[in-house]
Amino acid sequence: MEQLALVLKKIRPGAQAILVVHPPDVRYLTGFTGSNAAVIVPIAKPGEAVLFTDGRYIQQSKEEVRQARVEIVEQSLMRSACGWMQQRGMQRCFFDAEHTTVSALEAMRQAIAPKQRRSFFVPVAAPVARLRQIKDATEIRALQKAAHLGCDLFDAVLPLLEPGCREVEIAAQMELAARRAGADGMSFDTIVASGARSALPHGRATPQRLPKRGFVVLDFGVLLGGYCSDMTRTVHLGAASAAERAAYDAVLEAQMAGVDAVRPGATCGEVDEAARSVLRRAKLAQHFTHSTGHGVGLEIHEGPRLAAGQKQVLEPGMVITVEPGIYLPKRFGIRIEDMVLVTERGHKILTRSPKALVEL
Amino acid sequence: MEQLALVLKKIRPGAQAILVVHPPDVRYLTGFTGSNAAVIVPIAKPGEAVLFTDGRYIQQSKEEVRQARVEIVEQSLMRSACGWMQQRGMQRCFFDAEHTTVSALEAMRQAIAPKQRRSFFVPVAAPVARLRQIKDATEIRALQKAAHLGCDLFDAVLPLLEPGCREVEIAAQMELAARRAGADGMSFDTIVASGARSALPHGRATPQRLPKRGFVVLDFGVLLGGYCSDMTRTVHLGAASAAERAAYDAVLEAQMAGVDAVRPGATCGEVDEAARSVLRRAKLAQHFTHSTGHGVGLEIHEGPRLAAGQKQVLEPGMVITVEPGIYLPKRFGIRIEDMVLVTERGHKILTRSPKALVEL
Repeated sequence: MEQLALVLKKIRPGAQAILVVHPPDVRYLTGFTGSNAAVIVPIAKPGEAVLFTDGRYIQQSKEEVRQARVEIVEQSLMRSACGWMQQRGMQRCFFDAEHTTVSALEAMRQAIAPKQRRSFFVPVAAPVARLRQIKDATEIRALQKAAHLGCDLFDAVLPLLEPGCREVEIAAQMELAARRAGADGMSFDTIVASGARSALPHGRATPQRLPKRGFVVLDFGVLLGGYCSDMTRTVHLGAASAAERAAYDAVLEAQMAGVDAVRPGATCGEVDEAARSVLRRAKLAQHFTHSTGHGVGLEIHEGPRLAAGQKQVLEPGMVITVEPGIYLPKRFGIRIEDMVLVTERGHKILTRSPKALVEL
Repeated sequence: MEQLALVLKKIRPGAQAILVVHPPDVRYLTGFTGSNAAVIVPIAKPGEAVLFTDGRYIQQSKEEVRQARVEIVEQSLMRSACGWMQQRGMQRCFFDAEHTTVSALEAMRQAIAPKQRRSFFVPVAAPVARLRQIKDATEIRALQKAAHLGCDLFDAVLPLLEPGCREVEIAAQMELAARRAGADGMSFDTIVASGARSALPHGRATPQRLPKRGFVVLDFGVLLGGYCSDMTRTVHLGAASAAERAAYDAVLEAQMAGVDAVRPGATCGEVDEAARSVLRRAKLAQHFTHSTGHGVGLEIHEGPRLAAGQKQVLEPGMVITVEPGIYLPKRFGIRIEDMVLVTERGHKILTRSPKALVEL
């Protein structure tokens, strides 16, 4: 809250408060996990922040919210939040242009006195999401725990990967194990893509049975203590052909080159290029059809974005994925992904599962 | 697509096309289930619609997309979509103000030639979501199947509800059964809230163990063939006290009164009032802290919204929830929810599980 106020003080034209409504941002600032809340942070007195929510969350907000006073409101949160600011004579309020729809902004303006309506709301681009990119020690521990649980699930699922088993059964068993280990659930739809389906970069688990031979891409993550994990491993049922093995080795080399490039001061584009250039040399770059990675935290996809040409500089405390992959339509696909922490001196891989080709 | 064009033709000021980006809307119009797409529908020639997506979805878009030509683009979808419209001499384009952020609109404008920038994009409020409120026969079958699967899960979970069993284990077993029955997953975080936690309207399953006696609220849904189910049952472990039974009976009476009020021509507010007035007579209305229901379809929460004073009129083909509940902090909570189809003459309950109080 204090840190957010410090950042916002530097923005011109200034405002007396910021309105925060994106649920992960609300959670980050106040600990509240409900689905419907608006937080007003007065920039001069961030200690006087107020969280507005509705009657479904009376008890939950009492248990969860810290660093903000709670107001339970019966009508629109926005109307209540805007009324609160106007009663205090505020003239301007920042809002997050990346998480406010055009309709919502119009509704916010309607809650402001006509004279002030046009000038009251000042857009800023995702200021809380920017703070969230740098994880503190508590968050890093939470992400490490989530990543470890992901690796445990991978260990547990390997013996289940047998020809004839359905992709969805694999996904279901991983989800059950995640729940039993304390996860709130999965951080995204579990991908189990086998045989020719491995060539679908986003091939969610289907009732298809695993083939006798071929690749199986497993891309999955847990939600543990509010934080997401994200990892991918690609294994092979039966013995891989020479061509399959060469393709796997190229992706693995690209992944390790990407990880090696992670250090404070490197740009996101440089990490992408480190991975992509390996696949270019192997004449496989045309099959690497997505970006190299993304930040992970309270949300599965956060900044920074690791893609070609991205100029953003990596900083200590960022947690990112490095996940090159290649997809040969109707043949096979391979992707390998770790979560990586940017440290003061370089990086630390949070995903401990081995990456050498596993043939089952 | 044709129907959308018909609706849009009536809006003034007119436009030559509409840009659709909200994933459930994209799926509704084209069948595409990827996470990143922009669809341009030319209003005079809806048959010439184009779907823009990225390289991750080359194969998937070929398999899924109907009623639109696919363009795979390397850079921003928005830039490609805007370029496409300008090359065809279009002057104005509708966009969905409820699913476009302020930042996204600014980025869209930047992709338009400076002269046209201010006038090019015309806001409309969720036009595809409005069409989606009325389900066709195929969608109603899908929703009925999803609702039936939800009821099957409830039958399967009842024998597992024993004192000492953890809430998360119950949730995990339901999710495993859902997967095995062909669901793509759950339509929202499964709620298993037992004992005093039942007073949390959104009490997601935790590691807490079920008590020897007390209510357990189970609120859950599956995602089957793209469509969501949503149901709630509240059971009692051990014998309910007279006060608990009276409270349960009041909620059940309110729920049935709400369902009875569902018919074409009734307003959403009338359905809410039918349920709420029962709880008012029982002096429990102050504990009914949320609205009565919502539409269900490709998304778990869709229009219409069944809340106090809502003037929207129910129409045949709408599928809604009716889910009054009461929450006595630190004591207990009770909620009962069915999915209900608005028919030509009245309604049909899609949730077949019995609602009389179950004591386990």
